[in-house]
Amino acid sequence: MTYCVGILVREGLVMIADTRTNAGVDNIAIFRKLHLFEVPGERMITLATAGNLSISQSVLSLLSEGIEDPQTGELETLFTVPTMVKASRLVGRAIRQVYAADGADMEMRNMSFDVTLLLGGQILGGDMRLFQIYAAGNAIEATDDTPFLQIGEPKYGKPILDRAIAHDTAIVEALKLGLISMDSTLKSNLGVGLPIDIVVAKRDALRAGIRYRIEEDEPYFRDLRDRWSSALRAAHQAIPRPPYADEGF
Amino acid sequence: MTYCVGILVREGLVMIADTRTNAGVDNIAIFRKLHLFEVPGERMITLATAGNLSISQSVLSLLSEGIEDPQTGELETLFTVPTMVKASRLVGRAIRQVYAADGADMEMRNMSFDVTLLLGGQILGGDMRLFQIYAAGNAIEATDDTPFLQIGEPKYGKPILDRAIAHDTAIVEALKLGLISMDSTLKSNLGVGLPIDIVVAKRDALRAGIRYRIEEDEPYFRDLRDRWSSALRAAHQAIPRPPYADEGF
Repeated sequence: MTYCVGILVREGLVMIADTRTNAGVDNIAIFRKLHLFEVPGERMITLATAGNLSISQSVLSLLSEGIEDPQTGELETLFTVPTMVKASRLVGRAIRQVYAADGADMEMRNMSFDVTLLLGGQILGGDMRLFQIYAAGNAIEATDDTPFLQIGEPKYGKPILDRAIAHDTAIVEALKLGLISMDSTLKSNLGVGLPIDIVVAKRDALRAGIRYRIEEDEPYFRDLRDRWSSALRAAHQAIPRPPYADEGF
Repeated sequence: MTYCVGILVREGLVMIADTRTNAGVDNIAIFRKLHLFEVPGERMITLATAGNLSISQSVLSLLSEGIEDPQTGELETLFTVPTMVKASRLVGRAIRQVYAADGADMEMRNMSFDVTLLLGGQILGGDMRLFQIYAAGNAIEATDDTPFLQIGEPKYGKPILDRAIAHDTAIVEALKLGLISMDSTLKSNLGVGLPIDIVVAKRDALRAGIRYRIEEDEPYFRDLRDRWSSALRAAHQAIPRPPYADEGF
């Protein structure tokens, strides 16, 4: 399992991903799922992956090696594509190439071709964008109405984002809310685990202002988790008693 | 979809269930999913249902009409079983009878035999118990370590329960937390909807001290939702800024 969230607010982009992979509960490992393709001042692209590890690693290899542009015959990578929309299509083509190579054999062995990616970033001359790309290579994009996208195990961490994230949320609040959303998921799903990778980039900065790995026992994240738990406790205790009881209760 | 939660704390039992049923998003209806079988002073049994409505209604009909005891040949209902464990087995037998009648035809038409129930309560002379009963008729039971059980769509509403519910949580807090858990689920899953039914019973009272239906715009629940949203906003805003940014951020 996996939990990755991308949040695109007016000020910029937050991407957060866990690092746990598992093939059954008795086979867990740490793999980086959040990748940065950056040329400061020119482009800042991040890619988060969920699903079958062999597929996502193959997709990443293709995106680094390059995929032939069907028109020009040239090799394209995330470092050469001129726009974020083309970056999203390149990722889609990479997924289709992996499907063409491995999909039939995987399905013959009853393994579903399961991969989903978040692609966020900005290239000089274009706007900041955030896409979710599916196993068929098709994509959706975050908008002002729905400024966050989640892949992997979305449900435990979704209520706090549904309540609190809007397009005009400050980027530092978006980062805190993303970490709280990750905390809820860590608490409820063993398939999601520390360390947590973070990339944050302000709009038009064209570089990652935060790239950080939160390890086990990292003091800020531990403090955030403690403060959040205490605040929730205080919050439900401060709500008045339900007036529903009859006299005998 | 459905969301029902049962919480068994030292002080007693809280059962909460939504009422929305849907066959596709274009066919929704209101059906009671939380049922009370009560003889004040002698027994207080509640049953919450999730899954296929035809199965859960058939199970309820059998439990009201009675099922023949294989040993004595007498008809047993939730009003006649002598203990909660026997009540749980009776529900399991009801499910198996419905499966015997409808299961094969449903599966032939690619409908899965999908039903899960929460059974909570107390019968004079026995302790208060809370069971989750599966489509095969087998059951698990809440314990001091894991004092709540959820059926239907559990994930959105689980983090708050994971954080805050323990065996020694006050029953009034357990009710508030159950309503907050329901609120998170209502916000994130359209298949779960108002009205909300509640039954709360103190241990050894052998009667429901609260039996209440929260309708749309009911003032206490609306206030609880508002207070909770405001408290969450204040809570994440009060958390210090993450110290991860580099100088250029």
